[in-house]
Amino acid sequence: MTARSQKHWNGDPVELLRVGEGFRLADVDPAATPGFGGDRSDAEQDLQAGAAEFDGLQERLYAQSRENPRTPSLLLVLQAMDSAGKGGIVRHVIGTTDPQGIHLKAFKKPTEEELAHDFLWRIERDVPEAGYIGVFDRSHYEDVLIGRVRGLAEPDEIERRYGAINDFERRLTETGTRIVKVMLHISPGEQKKRLSQRLERPDKHWKYHPGDVDERQLWERYMDAYQIVFDRTSIGAAPWHVVPANKKWYARLAVQELVLEALERIDPQWPAASFDIEAEKKRLAAT
Amino acid sequence: MTARSQKHWNGDPVELLRVGEGFRLADVDPAATPGFGGDRSDAEQDLQAGAAEFDGLQERLYAQSRENPRTPSLLLVLQAMDSAGKGGIVRHVIGTTDPQGIHLKAFKKPTEEELAHDFLWRIERDVPEAGYIGVFDRSHYEDVLIGRVRGLAEPDEIERRYGAINDFERRLTETGTRIVKVMLHISPGEQKKRLSQRLERPDKHWKYHPGDVDERQLWERYMDAYQIVFDRTSIGAAPWHVVPANKKWYARLAVQELVLEALERIDPQWPAASFDIEAEKKRLAAT
Repeated sequence: MTARSQKHWNGDPVELLRVGEGFRLADVDPAATPGFGGDRSDAEQDLQAGAAEFDGLQERLYAQSRENPRTPSLLLVLQAMDSAGKGGIVRHVIGTTDPQGIHLKAFKKPTEEELAHDFLWRIERDVPEAGYIGVFDRSHYEDVLIGRVRGLAEPDEIERRYGAINDFERRLTETGTRIVKVMLHISPGEQKKRLSQRLERPDKHWKYHPGDVDERQLWERYMDAYQIVFDRTSIGAAPWHVVPANKKWYARLAVQELVLEALERIDPQWPAASFDIEAEKKRLAAT
Repeated sequence: MTARSQKHWNGDPVELLRVGEGFRLADVDPAATPGFGGDRSDAEQDLQAGAAEFDGLQERLYAQSRENPRTPSLLLVLQAMDSAGKGGIVRHVIGTTDPQGIHLKAFKKPTEEELAHDFLWRIERDVPEAGYIGVFDRSHYEDVLIGRVRGLAEPDEIERRYGAINDFERRLTETGTRIVKVMLHISPGEQKKRLSQRLERPDKHWKYHPGDVDERQLWERYMDAYQIVFDRTSIGAAPWHVVPANKKWYARLAVQELVLEALERIDPQWPAASFDIEAEKKRLAAT
């Protein structure tokens, strides 16, 4: 249990946002705030309280792994349309703790070398090690999202990938990686607003890419591709969560809760000393 | 110029802490606070103000690199005896900005594969790319510190390394990496206190390693090895700074100033748009 009871939740985001049987993306309202009973300012307060909890759990997880190489790890997979707020999650949720225990990887357009391997090859290289919190800003799901929408691979190959992803994620979970998969869901109108803002401000131009508008024009096809991802890969070992993200404050708070809950289930512990404490005290005193 | 004038500095830490001609480590008081006229609480306030400056400069540097692959990078090299506070610098100075622009690498005991290469091989792989702020928690200097003290290589080879380091760092600076080298300097008494605290608290046991006491017993030899490092490698392109670190608050603030000053000299700029802004506005409006 997180200290959720002291926050402004009136429902469990872990349950409410999880993609289960019969889930339809089209039914999700990107402007909603499922389970949260407060307003924006309550959310900011809760986010700060959550950051302290996150920090404590992260340190304990990392500490445990220093003594025990079989300590679990956590992997947060972030997928979304452009401008939905992945960067803000990294910054304001993950970035509140010690960077020394974070393994962050932003997956870009694959290189020639990466394309010469199976699509999971580059993913495997960035799986977080024991005790670390990994974050994938985009992921292997690009290979069945843009991959599908843009026809970057043959239909048979795309088809093959869903099963390969499930096998891969099952292997990770069996070997100690807890996977939290999140799609940040914004509306086309909200995206238009955000992209416009990037065009208006010279200090935001660098965040704008003409290609974003090209992808935007394929919105419905992307939503279809996401629906297939949810139907095929929201497995028990690694379920998806769709987080309404028109309100940034809600999305950040909800993802924080998903991460906190996963860490609490790991329940990391301070490791016992691997040395004789009293003997070390004497040895140190003698110096 | 940093906004140092609005802080509690009465001298320039960049100048005061720099290792120049005739520098003697033995003359540095690890409990001093060179150039700082305030107390601990002033320092905390200044650190917070500095974090905001750091954040702005970091974002601009990163932004510039998105459009220009020849954007500089910054590399902070941290060296110190155990418990001197490297982790705290990473956490409280570097960790205040967006983790997406940070490349952090903690160098541990070399692996078999690393030992089968020149000592700079593994270092080269973690040099920060354009626009990034790299942090080395330990570095190639271990190879002339513990390497020298413990005789991990032949004297000829240790001797060779100083020149190789200078050539390497000169190449980095010539190709756009600004290097800030910092030794955090604590006294043996302060270390004893900190190691004792780790032994007292079960939630700190994981930070204690019996080997720390072994190294501690070689304190003078380590100081000699550091002195040689300063004599041989504090070159114009990449000078060393020795930061008194008995007071953690001073060390953090001083390193923050060193980093701020380096970023200001880079003077990163928001990049011009690489696309036609008005055309994009129309294209977006049409969607």
